[in-house]
Amino acid sequence: MPYTLELIQFLLKSSKEQIEDYIEDIHPADILDAIHQYDGDKFQILNKLPDDIVADIIDQAEDEEKYELLTMFPTAKQKEIVDEMSSDELVDLLGSIDEEEKNSIIVKMDLEDAEEVKELLAYHPHTAGGIMATEFVAIKENMTVGETLKFLQKEAPDAETAYYIYVLANNGILKGVVSLRDIVVNDFNSLIIDIMNEKAISVPVDMDQEEVGHIFEKYGFLTMPVVDHENIMLGIVTVDDIMEILSKEHTEDLYRLAGLKEGEKVAGTIKESVKSRLPWLFVNLFTAILAAATVSFFESTISQVVALATFMPIVAGMGGNAGSQTLTIVIRGIALGELTFENAKKVLIKEIGVGLSNGLILGLAVAALGYIWEKKPVFGLVIGIAMFLNLVAATTAGYIVPVTLKKLKIDPALASAVFVTTVTDVLGFFFFLGLATIFISHLI
Amino acid sequence: MPYTLELIQFLLKSSKEQIEDYIEDIHPADILDAIHQYDGDKFQILNKLPDDIVADIIDQAEDEEKYELLTMFPTAKQKEIVDEMSSDELVDLLGSIDEEEKNSIIVKMDLEDAEEVKELLAYHPHTAGGIMATEFVAIKENMTVGETLKFLQKEAPDAETAYYIYVLANNGILKGVVSLRDIVVNDFNSLIIDIMNEKAISVPVDMDQEEVGHIFEKYGFLTMPVVDHENIMLGIVTVDDIMEILSKEHTEDLYRLAGLKEGEKVAGTIKESVKSRLPWLFVNLFTAILAAATVSFFESTISQVVALATFMPIVAGMGGNAGSQTLTIVIRGIALGELTFENAKKVLIKEIGVGLSNGLILGLAVAALGYIWEKKPVFGLVIGIAMFLNLVAATTAGYIVPVTLKKLKIDPALASAVFVTTVTDVLGFFFFLGLATIFISHLI
Repeated sequence: MPYTLELIQFLLKSSKEQIEDYIEDIHPADILDAIHQYDGDKFQILNKLPDDIVADIIDQAEDEEKYELLTMFPTAKQKEIVDEMSSDELVDLLGSIDEEEKNSIIVKMDLEDAEEVKELLAYHPHTAGGIMATEFVAIKENMTVGETLKFLQKEAPDAETAYYIYVLANNGILKGVVSLRDIVVNDFNSLIIDIMNEKAISVPVDMDQEEVGHIFEKYGFLTMPVVDHENIMLGIVTVDDIMEILSKEHTEDLYRLAGLKEGEKVAGTIKESVKSRLPWLFVNLFTAILAAATVSFFESTISQVVALATFMPIVAGMGGNAGSQTLTIVIRGIALGELTFENAKKVLIKEIGVGLSNGLILGLAVAALGYIWEKKPVFGLVIGIAMFLNLVAATTAGYIVPVTLKKLKIDPALASAVFVTTVTDVLGFFFFLGLATIFISHLI
Repeated sequence: MPYTLELIQFLLKSSKEQIEDYIEDIHPADILDAIHQYDGDKFQILNKLPDDIVADIIDQAEDEEKYELLTMFPTAKQKEIVDEMSSDELVDLLGSIDEEEKNSIIVKMDLEDAEEVKELLAYHPHTAGGIMATEFVAIKENMTVGETLKFLQKEAPDAETAYYIYVLANNGILKGVVSLRDIVVNDFNSLIIDIMNEKAISVPVDMDQEEVGHIFEKYGFLTMPVVDHENIMLGIVTVDDIMEILSKEHTEDLYRLAGLKEGEKVAGTIKESVKSRLPWLFVNLFTAILAAATVSFFESTISQVVALATFMPIVAGMGGNAGSQTLTIVIRGIALGELTFENAKKVLIKEIGVGLSNGLILGLAVAALGYIWEKKPVFGLVIGIAMFLNLVAATTAGYIVPVTLKKLKIDPALASAVFVTTVTDVLGFFFFLGLATIFISHLI
């Protein structure tokens, strides 16, 4: 990236004053990239930047890195940087460090900011309250557009984002919203009450962040107000934070389905990866032992018809694939809010139907295969029926397991795969080898 | 949802005039919900709404539904609705229908709009050009804030989104950007050239939409300008469209890993699901047959030591799990842009290291298990080594398969899983049964 290298050169060679003129036009994400790429003493670059830019850079950094960047500075300077951070940025920073480090930063804040941040920290970090910022622009409904413009010229530079302006009653209750666009395109004498949208859509402070994300996706908003149960406005959530959250939630879903810990990075170390993956592999080993125990129960049958061993992986493997198809559809349906209490029963019936249909088609296919391979019609019948039964079991388990986990308030992505695989392996072997045992006289 | 029911009642019972006063404050996504929920003649509701609201509702609808909603109206009215739609909305609508239907709509447009839309349709639908809107607010650098405000009061209601205003040279080259916030908080006499950001970050018109999405995620922008190779500004991409695209891409990744077609819905029909899933199951059946053929090659070994059949699923299953862990990390790393040409080799070495480490630990565990279960040290040795080798093969394949597919310009999420499972199944059985065949005299 030549742009990043240029930026490093500029930051190293220029004076503080030269940088100050120029740096406002550079996105903090790009400055952070430059700091990451620079092999020398990173503080040499950081120390040349104005406090508000450092605050923005810390906000851009990954959770683990925020505190590290801040504490490169001497204590007095840390206080000035902290002063430049908005409430949600501070909460992000504090949420990523331990109690002692947390207190060392809180003592550096203004009393008022410290109180506010402590209140925010009391909300669950994965709710609207945990991700909101308390900096927003509020006006009264009897103001005019012209008055609002003057008010904004005084106030807005402090607000996290001023694209929407909230109209509050004296008691803090949210009465409406006007966009900056409404302000700009309306006559200076227009009254706010006449141009505001009275049906402002808000999110309750205790709503889960993923659900907040879906509301943003549905409506395409840039910012949403957060209210308490009396409709008193507490803060705002912004779309850039929501995008980050949705991306993280998605990675989490993918990772959990494969049994990976959230923090694992493709460019991490071997040790981190082993720690992330080994626990899941041991859980799966236990599952595999259950499957092995099922097979071992039928060893005498296998010893009479060794071809059974050949076909075993087909029945279990196909069940596993069909199960994970249903599992994926159901988990994504839960995440997107498309699987609800109302349609749950219909979806279960559909999944059983899919299992019956695919089971019938694949059952016939492997029955033919088994018959051709082993030249025994009963062999074909046994593997065909086992395949059919296992596919029905697979789609049923693929539905029931995540839905049950969801009801138990366990993330369905976390543990579903291992349960479904256990079902399809154990039942697959049981159906196949059990039927073979029953019809053993026709198979020898 | 009592709110939706209320809205239906209101829309059914009120006159066109009553609705017009009230409907501007209702989000089109909520009106669309009401239309979906209403069991009666949906046109009865649609027909009462102003044209611009109908256009917004069509924009909110899923691709398949857009044309259906539009063609509920008589032809003359369709023209008026189409006039209200922005260029990117029209492109979405036209992209979802066949050639004949497409032409039937294009003839309803103004000549100018039709030309513009035809140009947009020429871009690949999954690039910045394919998702951009051509409606944006452009000003000149020698204007003042006051002049810009007056200009906006005249122009902005037509623009897709006016939160950023683009500063263009006479030849259309992008020179800078000012936000609506800059306009609002600066003095009326300030010159645009003094307050604009000259380092406007733009995306090239042929950039893939997923990459555009990552740029939005990185910078947290609400809108980005799209430029051609001479930096002439062609349109804008907005964050709400990007969120929709990223959500679809997420679903696609998850679905493809499990072998599901993109359009499948959790609340769809059995027929749709069977059509979505059966092709993948047949591909996997072919894989399973390869694995079975490997086993069948060793039938005489198994007939001498039936316990091998019991342990077979452990070796293959654990390999499959370890392979899909690496696969998930690598595919997510590619999607997030964290796996690059620069770190590719390092990541491969790491993955082999993870395979060696986990293989050693799990190899020892199953060696102990095999020894205890079968009371033969060589049995433990055989399964332990097979497990070790298969885990190394699994992480290596989990890396090589998606990276190779990516190089061949095939979506790695699409076909990786089946290749990796083939490797872990076939090699797992081969290592285990092959070693058993070599040491057969110690196993009987």
